[in-house]
Amino acid sequence: MEKVLTSEKEEIIDNNLKYTLFSWQKQAGIKPLVIDRAEGVYIWDKSGKRILDFSSQLVNVNIGHGHPAVADAVLKQMQEVSYVYPGMVTKARGELAKKLAAVAPGILTKTFFTLGGAEAIENAIKMARLVTGRHKIVTLYQSYHGATYGAMTAGGDPRKLPSDSQQMPNVVHVENPYFYRDPWHSATPEECGERAAEHFERVVGYEGPGNIAAVIMEGESGSSGCIKYPQGYLKKVKTICEKHGILFIADEVMSGFGRTGKWFGIQHHDVEPDMLCFAKGVTSGYLPLGGLMVTGEIARNFDDKPLPLGLTYSAHPVSCAAGSAVMDVYENEGLIENAARMGEYLESRVEELMQQHPSIGDFRNTGLLGCLELVKNRETKEPMAPWNANAAEMAIMNQVQAKLSELGMYTMVRWNFIFIAPPLTITEAQIDEGLEMISEALKIADAYCY
Amino acid sequence: MEKVLTSEKEEIIDNNLKYTLFSWQKQAGIKPLVIDRAEGVYIWDKSGKRILDFSSQLVNVNIGHGHPAVADAVLKQMQEVSYVYPGMVTKARGELAKKLAAVAPGILTKTFFTLGGAEAIENAIKMARLVTGRHKIVTLYQSYHGATYGAMTAGGDPRKLPSDSQQMPNVVHVENPYFYRDPWHSATPEECGERAAEHFERVVGYEGPGNIAAVIMEGESGSSGCIKYPQGYLKKVKTICEKHGILFIADEVMSGFGRTGKWFGIQHHDVEPDMLCFAKGVTSGYLPLGGLMVTGEIARNFDDKPLPLGLTYSAHPVSCAAGSAVMDVYENEGLIENAARMGEYLESRVEELMQQHPSIGDFRNTGLLGCLELVKNRETKEPMAPWNANAAEMAIMNQVQAKLSELGMYTMVRWNFIFIAPPLTITEAQIDEGLEMISEALKIADAYCY
Ligand SMILES: Cc1ncc(COP(=O)(O)O)c(C=O)c1O
Ligand SMILES: Cc1ncc(COP(=O)(O)O)c(C=O)c1O
Repeated sequence: MEKVLTSEKEEIIDNNLKYTLFSWQKQAGIKPLVIDRAEGVYIWDKSGKRILDFSSQLVNVNIGHGHPAVADAVLKQMQEVSYVYPGMVTKARGELAKKLAAVAPGILTKTFFTLGGAEAIENAIKMARLVTGRHKIVTLYQSYHGATYGAMTAGGDPRKLPSDSQQMPNVVHVENPYFYRDPWHSATPEECGERAAEHFERVVGYEGPGNIAAVIMEGESGSSGCIKYPQGYLKKVKTICEKHGILFIADEVMSGFGRTGKWFGIQHHDVEPDMLCFAKGVTSGYLPLGGLMVTGEIARNFDDKPLPLGLTYSAHPVSCAAGSAVMDVYENEGLIENAARMGEYLESRVEELMQQHPSIGDFRNTGLLGCLELVKNRETKEPMAPWNANAAEMAIMNQVQAKLSELGMYTMVRWNFIFIAPPLTITEAQIDEGLEMISEALKIADAYCY
Repeated sequence: MEKVLTSEKEEIIDNNLKYTLFSWQKQAGIKPLVIDRAEGVYIWDKSGKRILDFSSQLVNVNIGHGHPAVADAVLKQMQEVSYVYPGMVTKARGELAKKLAAVAPGILTKTFFTLGGAEAIENAIKMARLVTGRHKIVTLYQSYHGATYGAMTAGGDPRKLPSDSQQMPNVVHVENPYFYRDPWHSATPEECGERAAEHFERVVGYEGPGNIAAVIMEGESGSSGCIKYPQGYLKKVKTICEKHGILFIADEVMSGFGRTGKWFGIQHHDVEPDMLCFAKGVTSGYLPLGGLMVTGEIARNFDDKPLPLGLTYSAHPVSCAAGSAVMDVYENEGLIENAARMGEYLESRVEELMQQHPSIGDFRNTGLLGCLELVKNRETKEPMAPWNANAAEMAIMNQVQAKLSELGMYTMVRWNFIFIAPPLTITEAQIDEGLEMISEALKIADAYCY
């Protein structure tokens, strides 16, 4: 017998728990928030509680919630035509692609549209292998590129470990230039970057440069803990790639679309990628869309032989219309510039916070792609929770996160990282509001410091 | 210097050609139609030409084009909230999942939402391997399951051959029960089904039943040429699976949502799958959405350990709202019943057509999932174009397709197949209209018959 449902909210939760599965978590004991209102940097739970969204959901709602321009564009497109197969075209598809070409780094001109980020990576890998005739892919251990078999194998993120036994072959991982926990015990970030590039070069040699199709690296590191590339590192990697005819693929799924204070993360590193994968920010999450940008030279490989890539929803007309509207919002509202400015403000405010909270071991950010790394001790750098922490190891961090929720904040918390990646529309006052909540919650972590 | 653009249509085409890539085709010489109006079974090119959509684009626009209920639902959702991460919920997500559970075959109750069909398959493979602790996947050679590394390897479709060298390991393919070109030279479809099941059983034995996690088969065969399963075949396959603890995964991406005259193709075969993958029809293409349905028993494996599956756009609120609205359209407008009725009408009309056109070797359909198989000779069954035909081998079929376009029809043409899979809203008069065009175009093919 169905239990009598006392309210609409309970019915919504009940349907969701009974009939749907939730990603990346245990299915027992989930208590999901019901959301039916959102505006700017805030979302509201159905009980009326206002929640500050300090990580733009999954670092994708870059323009903030509830922007009417996107709904307008979507409605207009749906009134014309909602779907045509990718061999037919719409105005929005061409317009969005043109806008992308205008802001992309280097000489990327042509977009193959996908749905999410994982499919962008899948197609990049396939294309790189086809174009080079080589089979190996080199990526960083601390990276995430999506959860389909190809993308999952490409990433080094431990989310793949349960499904590890049947990966796509021929992916090689190298160590990150992670200065705070430096594998090479360097004196400066620059030295760390140099040694990481040397490590990369050695591995390329061991693997056989002529066997390597592509290197995939995030434009700036995201969910692995914003492990900022030291200046010079990517440039060195790219030079090594060029020397051996290895393609450089920038994964800008998280770092793209103004997140770092420039259009794309890679633009902080004076590197022109051969391919670029995007998703998230392109529509700010309003509708699913992703894609792969390539140079004209790479595209020309498929002038006279079929491009063996495809998916039913490649270049979905409505998603493209949403993307095109979102691109205008970035431009018209100066969001890229605001992200750069607010990134600086955030840095200065977090510096103050570090004086008060011994649990903040490190803060790393590029624009509004940032995270706090919590430690029990600044000397030993013992993490507040280890990499790939299990449930027990997350006990303290879970308390911190629960406190943040109680105070009215949603943000991504992973292991010992608290992400700070709010919508690019955020103001100084809203950053202050968020940091106050974080400061309050950090008291819990501070108590475990020695 | 940019060439002066003489019209909006030219500018649209120009943008699309210059800045986007087209799936599964050569990039040189593409002349795409520009579409900005669509209603029911028709779409209109920007020059005003009306085109009968006889394959529902990619067999996904099941409710027909331009249904206002979907745009309404989408707008409403976007006015509430466009995106929350999959750990938060919306009303539409729970509602859609509940509606799916109500119509799904057997005891499938829980949905993990993805974007396209490929990602549904990827997640099904991962979950099957996790739940069984086994590694092998068995599928049919003539099948398509998507184009990401896992899904591509699972399918046998030749679209994967260019990217073949780096597949996901441990997929085994078996022959289809293809009565018209029967590998086992059977006397009747039933005998073909029996022999195909015996072949399947032998392969399972050779591969080691205890090593096989799952079998994946389309609910009814789609883009491989609607290779209808003889009655009894799937039931036998399922029995063999049960005997060995092998999960049966139905890929209903193309055959689901009324396409065959029942909610799901598998429901013609008295089989209850352990998992079911869907996409396409769930939103009728209006927005991207897919998913994986599992039984409560399978879901319970992840009550106390994290479900290691995820993607940014799992259970996208707006896509779920579109899906929920589309489910109501199927119900309220009796589309499943209409598909069954129109399928019968189509069969009787094609039977007449076969009298006139020697080039029709075979017609196979289940409801409105159908295709003509063209041959040069009914005795030898020499195909009008071979499986995986190259450009030269497609010469005749290309002429047929060009004629269809000229007459005002869009439909999927592949090798020697002409698909007939119109929106489920189609009327007898509209079927007649389409078949007249096909009849006209078939004269070209007839001329090559000997
Ligand atoms: C850098 C990066 N690449 C790829 C992906 C995968 O994108 P999706 O979840 O849309 O498949 C993500 C998702 O978080 C990401 O952060
Ligand atoms: C039976 C079947 N499975 C899976 C897919 C892949 O779906 P998608 O193109 O949405 O990835 C398709 C696409 O045509 C299909 O027909």
